[in-house]
Amino acid sequence: MSLIKEKVNQAVEILKEQQTDMWLTFVRETSGVRDPALDLLIGPGDLTWLSAIILTRKGEKIAIVGNLEKEAIQNLDIYDTILGYDKSVRELLRDTITRLNPDHIAVNTSKNNVHADGLTHAMHEILTDYLADTSYAKRLTSAEAVISALRGRKTPSEQMRVQKAIEITEEIFNKTFNHIKVGMTEIEIGAYMHNLAREYKVDLAWPAESCPAVNSGPNSPVGHNGPTNIKIERGHIIHFDFGVKYEDYCSDIQRVCYVLREGETEAPLEVQRGFITIRTAIEKSREAMRIGVQGKVIDTISREIVVDSGYAEYPYALGHQLGRVAHDGGALLGPLWEKYGDLPNQKLEAGQIFTIEPGLTVNGYGHIGLEEDVLITLNGAEYLGDPQREIVLLKG
Amino acid sequence: MSLIKEKVNQAVEILKEQQTDMWLTFVRETSGVRDPALDLLIGPGDLTWLSAIILTRKGEKIAIVGNLEKEAIQNLDIYDTILGYDKSVRELLRDTITRLNPDHIAVNTSKNNVHADGLTHAMHEILTDYLADTSYAKRLTSAEAVISALRGRKTPSEQMRVQKAIEITEEIFNKTFNHIKVGMTEIEIGAYMHNLAREYKVDLAWPAESCPAVNSGPNSPVGHNGPTNIKIERGHIIHFDFGVKYEDYCSDIQRVCYVLREGETEAPLEVQRGFITIRTAIEKSREAMRIGVQGKVIDTISREIVVDSGYAEYPYALGHQLGRVAHDGGALLGPLWEKYGDLPNQKLEAGQIFTIEPGLTVNGYGHIGLEEDVLITLNGAEYLGDPQREIVLLKG
Repeated sequence: MSLIKEKVNQAVEILKEQQTDMWLTFVRETSGVRDPALDLLIGPGDLTWLSAIILTRKGEKIAIVGNLEKEAIQNLDIYDTILGYDKSVRELLRDTITRLNPDHIAVNTSKNNVHADGLTHAMHEILTDYLADTSYAKRLTSAEAVISALRGRKTPSEQMRVQKAIEITEEIFNKTFNHIKVGMTEIEIGAYMHNLAREYKVDLAWPAESCPAVNSGPNSPVGHNGPTNIKIERGHIIHFDFGVKYEDYCSDIQRVCYVLREGETEAPLEVQRGFITIRTAIEKSREAMRIGVQGKVIDTISREIVVDSGYAEYPYALGHQLGRVAHDGGALLGPLWEKYGDLPNQKLEAGQIFTIEPGLTVNGYGHIGLEEDVLITLNGAEYLGDPQREIVLLKG
Repeated sequence: MSLIKEKVNQAVEILKEQQTDMWLTFVRETSGVRDPALDLLIGPGDLTWLSAIILTRKGEKIAIVGNLEKEAIQNLDIYDTILGYDKSVRELLRDTITRLNPDHIAVNTSKNNVHADGLTHAMHEILTDYLADTSYAKRLTSAEAVISALRGRKTPSEQMRVQKAIEITEEIFNKTFNHIKVGMTEIEIGAYMHNLAREYKVDLAWPAESCPAVNSGPNSPVGHNGPTNIKIERGHIIHFDFGVKYEDYCSDIQRVCYVLREGETEAPLEVQRGFITIRTAIEKSREAMRIGVQGKVIDTISREIVVDSGYAEYPYALGHQLGRVAHDGGALLGPLWEKYGDLPNQKLEAGQIFTIEPGLTVNGYGHIGLEEDVLITLNGAEYLGDPQREIVLLKG
């Protein structure tokens, strides 16, 4: 069974579980604005004209598309009913909804989860206009819970793809660590990693400009920006943030090295202390992750360890979900800051994959940030890769 | 000057021309849902947290982003004011709008042009909530006219990129025509074209599944679907729809061949007649294209030529704009069908690039569709490539 078919079947099960009559994904010209739900409903293809993908809790799978795209949808072998049109989708859509007569229609709008928020403001207006003479316009509700569950609960084949992305990322890191020499620039190291990704025939998990991030020493700006012309020097912490996409599924991993100075055989104590703090914050967070726990509870564990150790509080969430994109939506290991909406209140579910990624600065040396990817199982959170347990020492 | 900087400056000129005080692009987690306006405002990078890009007719260029992304925006060297935040964008955004005190705030919502419709329904709600205590919530208006002008009016460097994409496409077509043999499948020919695209180091202009479309003979489904296992036979028309993306700018071209039967030295008369009809429809349409003419007027010219020649009416618009995506938004050479909204009423402007792509079926032989890409200039519409003037005869 194709992965898309697997996910569409899973979606119907989620509609049953959540007692949601109908999920409507309403799109157009998806090469311009693409509702992320489409990836799980039709795969990478585009829909050009106004189109509706409808799933119901009774298991009906309906696609209403322009006639020139009927064949492409038929080829997916997922939808039982495929309706085509040439000039206007209005009647077909209204008639189909009337026939199904749902109590609620879940549509892709969400203040919390961007991946459940593919319906544009104007498309929402068009939809309510189509339904204006019916009672259905008032039955529109948010599909956030459906989509968050569907994206979050990874099937075994989705889990395998993430795991493979992580394996490749770890191999690229190891080769890179062996390659680094004092005097190289961050940009040169980034280019080397890009070459390795091409050799492994994988895409990058986010735009190439900042994938990888490479930060060498205390003066390199940390954040969502790319490598600079700063050169590797002895006494630098080198921090990496990198991920690849293997068959549409991402890894997202941070690693740190230390470049030994003449005569040193290990990192200075303050660097070691920073590393251990982050490593402990990750391990304690992971140990506390269980089905049903709210993400904010986990966030607090790590945040307190870092702050109580005397470091500045990192200005971002402890971890996000990982999947078809590096920052996947739904439940978040985060604080209740306004920018995160309700996501930190949401509960962990089996099959979700999270990053855990606290960070801190060691004055005069650089940034220490580790990021591990874990899978929520009935037994708690399991590392999907090989976590970094010691700082990598480079001889330069 | 970078292309992005060029486009941002052009946007300010368009705001002046249209007497629009402020254009606000309001986004978040653009790896999930990406407002297409961002490509022209910040390039390919993503913005993670709630972010606002503001341009004013007075020429102010302001970005409000999460602190971890300030550096990346600074590196663009486009925005004069870059404000960063950690927890909530609400105050910064409200204070900035209050300071600028615009009569109207154009936001990215449009029923007509999908490329001007990047604001999701929930983000519109968040924005009106932020502005609830002010008079600005009621001053929101559509940025459709701004974005359509900005995307439509190609700068010389944008035009050069499209032209280069067209050149490469023509070379790939010519190599493919020389490669085709009777008995090959459509899928094999599609794979050959993918290989050529890789050799030329270009991306495809739309998803690989249906780029190219290859239709051999009368039984191949024409539309937005991919090549099939149908084999090339003598007496088939072979129809192609293909485009590449060169430095972010697309081509979109259709071509037709005819596979000679034993003893034939030219295509049968009915195939020739079909070809000439389409070729004439294109040329007459192009000749009528001038600045200020509505797209629907051009659509009618071609549609009448095809229908008056006794062929079925093609169920799609004559032509669309071409740019960063193959189906770019704004003015359309199309009929006033509901699915096209107001776009066919919009007027042609200098610098726009359009496809012209009528089609028809020759019973028993296959589909004839040609597609040429033209640039609107002060002198009318100019072919950007070498239009197909005769059907390509293949000896098999």
